[in-house]
Amino acid sequence: MKLCDLAKLVSGKIIGSGDVEITGVAQASEAKSGDLVFVLDKKFLAESLSSKATAILAQESMPIKNKAAILVANPRQAMAKILACFAPPKSQALGIHPTAIIPSSCHLGQNVFIGPYVVLEDNVSIGAGTIIEPQVFIGRDCQIGQQVIIHSGARIGIDGYGYVQVEKKHIKIPQIGKVIIEDEVEIYANVCISRATLGSTIIGAGTKIDNLSHVAHNCKIGKNCAIVSLVGFAGSVTLKDNVYVAGQSGFNGHITIGENTVVMAKSGVTKDIPANMVVSGFPAQDHGKEIKEKATLKRLAKKNK
Amino acid sequence: MKLCDLAKLVSGKIIGSGDVEITGVAQASEAKSGDLVFVLDKKFLAESLSSKATAILAQESMPIKNKAAILVANPRQAMAKILACFAPPKSQALGIHPTAIIPSSCHLGQNVFIGPYVVLEDNVSIGAGTIIEPQVFIGRDCQIGQQVIIHSGARIGIDGYGYVQVEKKHIKIPQIGKVIIEDEVEIYANVCISRATLGSTIIGAGTKIDNLSHVAHNCKIGKNCAIVSLVGFAGSVTLKDNVYVAGQSGFNGHITIGENTVVMAKSGVTKDIPANMVVSGFPAQDHGKEIKEKATLKRLAKKNK
Amino acid sequence: MKLCDLAKLVSGKIIGSGDVEITGVAQASEAKSGDLVFVLDKKFLAESLSSKATAILAQESMPIKNKAAILVANPRQAMAKILACFAPPKSQALGIHPTAIIPSSCHLGQNVFIGPYVVLEDNVSIGAGTIIEPQVFIGRDCQIGQQVIIHSGARIGIDGYGYVQVEKKHIKIPQIGKVIIEDEVEIYANVCISRATLGSTIIGAGTKIDNLSHVAHNCKIGKNCAIVSLVGFAGSVTLKDNVYVAGQSGFNGHITIGENTVVMAKSGVTKDIPANMVVSGFPAQDHGKEIKEKATLKRLAKKNK
Repeated sequence: MKLCDLAKLVSGKIIGSGDVEITGVAQASEAKSGDLVFVLDKKFLAESLSSKATAILAQESMPIKNKAAILVANPRQAMAKILACFAPPKSQALGIHPTAIIPSSCHLGQNVFIGPYVVLEDNVSIGAGTIIEPQVFIGRDCQIGQQVIIHSGARIGIDGYGYVQVEKKHIKIPQIGKVIIEDEVEIYANVCISRATLGSTIIGAGTKIDNLSHVAHNCKIGKNCAIVSLVGFAGSVTLKDNVYVAGQSGFNGHITIGENTVVMAKSGVTKDIPANMVVSGFPAQDHGKEIKEKATLKRLAKKNK
Repeated sequence: MKLCDLAKLVSGKIIGSGDVEITGVAQASEAKSGDLVFVLDKKFLAESLSSKATAILAQESMPIKNKAAILVANPRQAMAKILACFAPPKSQALGIHPTAIIPSSCHLGQNVFIGPYVVLEDNVSIGAGTIIEPQVFIGRDCQIGQQVIIHSGARIGIDGYGYVQVEKKHIKIPQIGKVIIEDEVEIYANVCISRATLGSTIIGAGTKIDNLSHVAHNCKIGKNCAIVSLVGFAGSVTLKDNVYVAGQSGFNGHITIGENTVVMAKSGVTKDIPANMVVSGFPAQDHGKEIKEKATLKRLAKKNK
Repeated sequence: MKLCDLAKLVSGKIIGSGDVEITGVAQASEAKSGDLVFVLDKKFLAESLSSKATAILAQESMPIKNKAAILVANPRQAMAKILACFAPPKSQALGIHPTAIIPSSCHLGQNVFIGPYVVLEDNVSIGAGTIIEPQVFIGRDCQIGQQVIIHSGARIGIDGYGYVQVEKKHIKIPQIGKVIIEDEVEIYANVCISRATLGSTIIGAGTKIDNLSHVAHNCKIGKNCAIVSLVGFAGSVTLKDNVYVAGQSGFNGHITIGENTVVMAKSGVTKDIPANMVVSGFPAQDHGKEIKEKATLKRLAKKNK
């Protein structure tokens, strides 16, 4: 593609010649002639300008010299659009791999991709345009929305961890609920989402859950949440919309986290958190308060050592 | 089933008519005519009584009005029994899926279920009535007891992480032991249990290990333990019977945790813990002591800020 | 084998008769006639000497009585060599299992083992002597070196977790980079390594990553690192060579950890760490300093309770 075509795609302004041919995208350190390099941070500008790349894409306030460029208001957003032009097509054409196990009671929407060695149990429904990567498991009755992506090895709808104690033995409580994954959710590799005891475990539309996280039975995760890796939710947690949860955080059961709240890494959230908070620590509290407490204690420790 | 039949099953007392037909079970918020709702906590009683459910099951001390009911001493235990009547049968009849890989050196007990894309290595034995869900891996020589459930994606008997350092390189120590999983254990999705270097890694009868936990080589986990998600055990940890381990806790190698001890969430257990303790924190200590220390320090931080 | 043959293998000195026949290896508690027992710690010497084992292998300074023995300078290293003689051969002869999915665009070196239900995407290359255990996933374009071992359920080259926020929605940034795993790396079960957005996520030669760890997009992990279980790396972390990371530690994105540094268990590493440090805590700092701070605060809490 010509640089001017890419500029048009992202509504960018061209510096230098728009006629140069762009044949690839690369990091500055690996760029060769024909490549476009994205400058997401000013500190990479000098390296990018002196790289072998044919052109760069940068924020419109950045000073460009000696290199063709596309300037935009939001380089990260522009990068997302341009990378899509250079992404290789999926290895198999969209479709159902013959090794996928799909009982006749399942319902599949149009244009779904189901990879090798996927196992669906009875009565699963999968919405249009959804991608189920290899080796995923989806248990009976689960509902997966449209334009969802589920990465390799994720386990959707295994039993919730529910027992009643009788004379020190754990008697299993049958888990007869399901999991509902709404539209445009992305679930990464080896994530586990447990089915509800009764009713549904729900992952709200547009939410993204990174590798190796665990969502227990009867959780209700809101819309457009971002949950990164190795996070654990005990049973019946409610996350409202647009919550951000950083890595290795954990949540007690039966609590509610308000809209737009940010939970910092490694937090232990033990009780309800209101909307629009930034929390950290264990027990999680207002982040500003926590870092002040930590700083004061560090000072006290120094004074008293 | 009639309400009186369910009452008989759980030795419960009937309020109202025992002749009403119960066709399903549900949460109060989703209940419709024909459903039975379980009231596990008094705070849900009002909602349950005003729901569309035909009947409720509640603790015998709860005041019931305007609704048929079963009253029992232990509603959670009664729920476990009644849910079993409403659980759908397994999607495949009990049996061995043709895609499961089972070397002729393996020994399978009666009435086992082995799901699609399970891989057993040589010389694995599986006890009667055990359920191996899809895509599980069980390495050579491992012994799985009776009435065990292993959920999708669990890895039993991968190599222990054992090396000897020679001039900064890690030289692999062959792992030639095995894993023994005793009767009535339940292992959830994507759990990893490493084989012993020599001898056996053991999971005691009746123990339940939730999603994404890791048990290293040569651990000896006792009977009827409850280990929840994202927990990590380093090598050669001994847990005695009836230990409870909450989420995201971790254990140093070569330590012993006494019977009936409770390890709270996110603990870092660094040394032996006696029986009948409740511990928390990192390093884990008596929980009462830990919360007092935290409270005192919070007060000091406030005073000195 | 005769004891003298094993002694020769590890350049050890024999106590007693070198002619005794060694038919197995065992822990002291389970040893029977014919077995060799390894004494890695002096505290196990008495039990080993009084066991039913035919012989023991011990450190050359240990006092041996009434038992044939091999004495060596480094018993752990000798054990690694001897266990290799007693390890069972792999269940399938080296080769490619017919159920492995390998597009014609992939390149496989000599003597690779690829287990059942492995899925490779387009254009994957696998070096000579590499072992890919069952049910592994390796995404398009990834490069796996020679003499690598990847255990069951690992996911190599799933998409990095990359989005741009537009009006509270997460717009996916296509991930078009790859993963490079260098020679002699070992990746354990259910580990997840995300492909780079652009360029490569790299695992350096000789590095070993234990079960259920997560390496995000664009990380550069050095050579001969040891990373144990449930560790999480955010995006673009650099680990230099010979770094040791203990369990459940986590790393902020875009930071660098120097050579030979040790990161203790459950650390939260928030910023660059120089070479040759031992760090712990959250935020991670010099370990000696951290334990002194903790001790002082414990003392203050006691005094002020």
